[in-house]
Amino acid sequence: MMERNRPPGPESRHRHPPELGSELALLARIRARVASAGSHWKVRLGIGDDCALVDVNPGEEMAVTTDLSIAGRHFELALHPPEVIGHRALARGLSDLAAMGARPIAAFLSLGLPKGLTATANRSHKTENGSLVSGRRFTRAETTSKIIRGFSPWIDRFYDGVLALAREFRTPLAGGDLAESPIVVADMVLLGAVPRGKALLRSGARPGDAIYVTGSLGGAAAGLEMLKELAATQKSGAASGLRFPLGLAPALTSHLYPQPRVNQGLWLRKHGVAAAAIDISDGLSTDLKHLCDESGVAAEVDAGALPVSAGATLLQALHGGEDYELLFTARPNARLPRKVAGAAVTRVGQILRRSTKKPLVALITPQGRESLEAQGWEHFA
Amino acid sequence: MMERNRPPGPESRHRHPPELGSELALLARIRARVASAGSHWKVRLGIGDDCALVDVNPGEEMAVTTDLSIAGRHFELALHPPEVIGHRALARGLSDLAAMGARPIAAFLSLGLPKGLTATANRSHKTENGSLVSGRRFTRAETTSKIIRGFSPWIDRFYDGVLALAREFRTPLAGGDLAESPIVVADMVLLGAVPRGKALLRSGARPGDAIYVTGSLGGAAAGLEMLKELAATQKSGAASGLRFPLGLAPALTSHLYPQPRVNQGLWLRKHGVAAAAIDISDGLSTDLKHLCDESGVAAEVDAGALPVSAGATLLQALHGGEDYELLFTARPNARLPRKVAGAAVTRVGQILRRSTKKPLVALITPQGRESLEAQGWEHFA
Repeated sequence: MMERNRPPGPESRHRHPPELGSELALLARIRARVASAGSHWKVRLGIGDDCALVDVNPGEEMAVTTDLSIAGRHFELALHPPEVIGHRALARGLSDLAAMGARPIAAFLSLGLPKGLTATANRSHKTENGSLVSGRRFTRAETTSKIIRGFSPWIDRFYDGVLALAREFRTPLAGGDLAESPIVVADMVLLGAVPRGKALLRSGARPGDAIYVTGSLGGAAAGLEMLKELAATQKSGAASGLRFPLGLAPALTSHLYPQPRVNQGLWLRKHGVAAAAIDISDGLSTDLKHLCDESGVAAEVDAGALPVSAGATLLQALHGGEDYELLFTARPNARLPRKVAGAAVTRVGQILRRSTKKPLVALITPQGRESLEAQGWEHFA
Repeated sequence: MMERNRPPGPESRHRHPPELGSELALLARIRARVASAGSHWKVRLGIGDDCALVDVNPGEEMAVTTDLSIAGRHFELALHPPEVIGHRALARGLSDLAAMGARPIAAFLSLGLPKGLTATANRSHKTENGSLVSGRRFTRAETTSKIIRGFSPWIDRFYDGVLALAREFRTPLAGGDLAESPIVVADMVLLGAVPRGKALLRSGARPGDAIYVTGSLGGAAAGLEMLKELAATQKSGAASGLRFPLGLAPALTSHLYPQPRVNQGLWLRKHGVAAAAIDISDGLSTDLKHLCDESGVAAEVDAGALPVSAGATLLQALHGGEDYELLFTARPNARLPRKVAGAAVTRVGQILRRSTKKPLVALITPQGRESLEAQGWEHFA
């Protein structure tokens, strides 16, 4: 029965008059915003039913990843503008798809929010603790329009960040959950598609493979330091939120708006050159160890070959994390261009046979060879 | 290359020696537990890579749902044993699949945990606030074995609850995320499959349809009241957690271990009798309103026909929520058995034409006809 499967039209949001309660009003608002961001033929039914319905091509399998972002752990309300929190939450998931060589199909967002951030007054960009989260001053016109629209600037700006990146990678926000929570919690779920048996796995590396990274490393860690300094110097003016210099330093941009390497992952998968791949979310030292663990191999990294981001240190490049570059291996005879889909590709080391007598990951420096311990992001450490 | 797609074998968990950090150790532990719970041919790659890989049959589409469970909102650490929190988190997602008539394929869990709940000592079933979360006393042997296993009883028991229900509905836990969090947060993501165009939607109801519910209503709300009373009377003995009477009252079981109506949803979809469906998670009054909104219709409910759970009141049956029964409509000439897959099916009302002159949902009582306002679960209210 075709009729039953007709996706709810845009008029359906008018069925939730605001007086029905603020959760419904909030859901209707999100639904309308997501709908205005465009649809995608793979999503046959989005927000508004018990489940979303997603289509898959014959011969493809689905790649699924979930990423939790928690206030105080993955971001700070006092440091990160809401757009940035939204952008980064989606970037993490897209980066996981990139590392599999998968094409994004849809995103789902479970969002837990303190009541204060959903209030409709313009004081609502204050968090419950009283710290301010706005990343820039609003013009009066903007503030007025947000008040007229009747929704909290915080949540509007959060969705601005999510939806701008979603549009860039043609990834519809197809559903999720919304709940009141003492702290801001966002779980981003990404679905992607990849031809059956062709996904790039962590477990494909073999001794002799060359190790490559895309882009440059350490920028996000350096940018986080810059952000903290900015916050410290502007402490007195915190009542209006952090003010960013007009031209953001590249490292600050790396931290605030990391670009997932989706197109690079697709290129590597289509050209069949990558034997194994992972994205650098926890830091090179930690993620290379993950790849070695899953492949049952060891590795060595040449410190001199690392593409360290402008403004970053070697240690930030080795352990910083959140750069969302791809780390991949290729057979020794594979030929790689210098750039893939606009991103530099740099050979940084090689895969070795595993042995209890040598370090799992070794770092080669002018001073010699040392063990590179995983010192990246670690929960519960 | 087949070899690259070989799922990591059970030996792979030995590649994370415990000294590598407790997050890795915890992940390895979860991975091993999930692996021992059995696999599923639809999940070609589970925990251990950037994404999981899931297969879909030709002609099927995928149903996707996410459900946030947050401490203090959806459960209380001082009230709910960890098995119950795990069971209920998965039950919510399975119930959403049931309401679409979808077959479960895989679950993904994003879990945020306070450090205290992942500590390895036996004091770890204390929360950071010092309240106790164990639902029963451990025997000495159990406690010893848990200490030897080196993991927190809380997280072990949480996974006990998730995995027992997952096994019952042959739903592998195929991935997710793990993060440190000030409060317990669990986002459960469910994937299901349904023949293309055959999903049961909220939007399919038409004037004249009869309204049905499975099972009985109000039990979960009554059970929650019982649980709170139990906690109040045992306050002095709280140091060892709540002690449950040997034979749990049915209402208490409805609250602690709700059974998602997966098989009933599949039956309804296969037999093509349901025109629209939703699960009763927020309460009949709220969920029937959702269905009416999505279908553009109104409804009336006969109070005398409602299957009220033993020990529950009419108000609990109307507004209580968390019963996870199915509410569905069928054309007036449809013939339904008294039971579907073991659950009673009761006709409770009918769908009406929508009009601004009458209530959206009306309740018929011996006193006459009144408006049934949505008074179920509402965030940000």
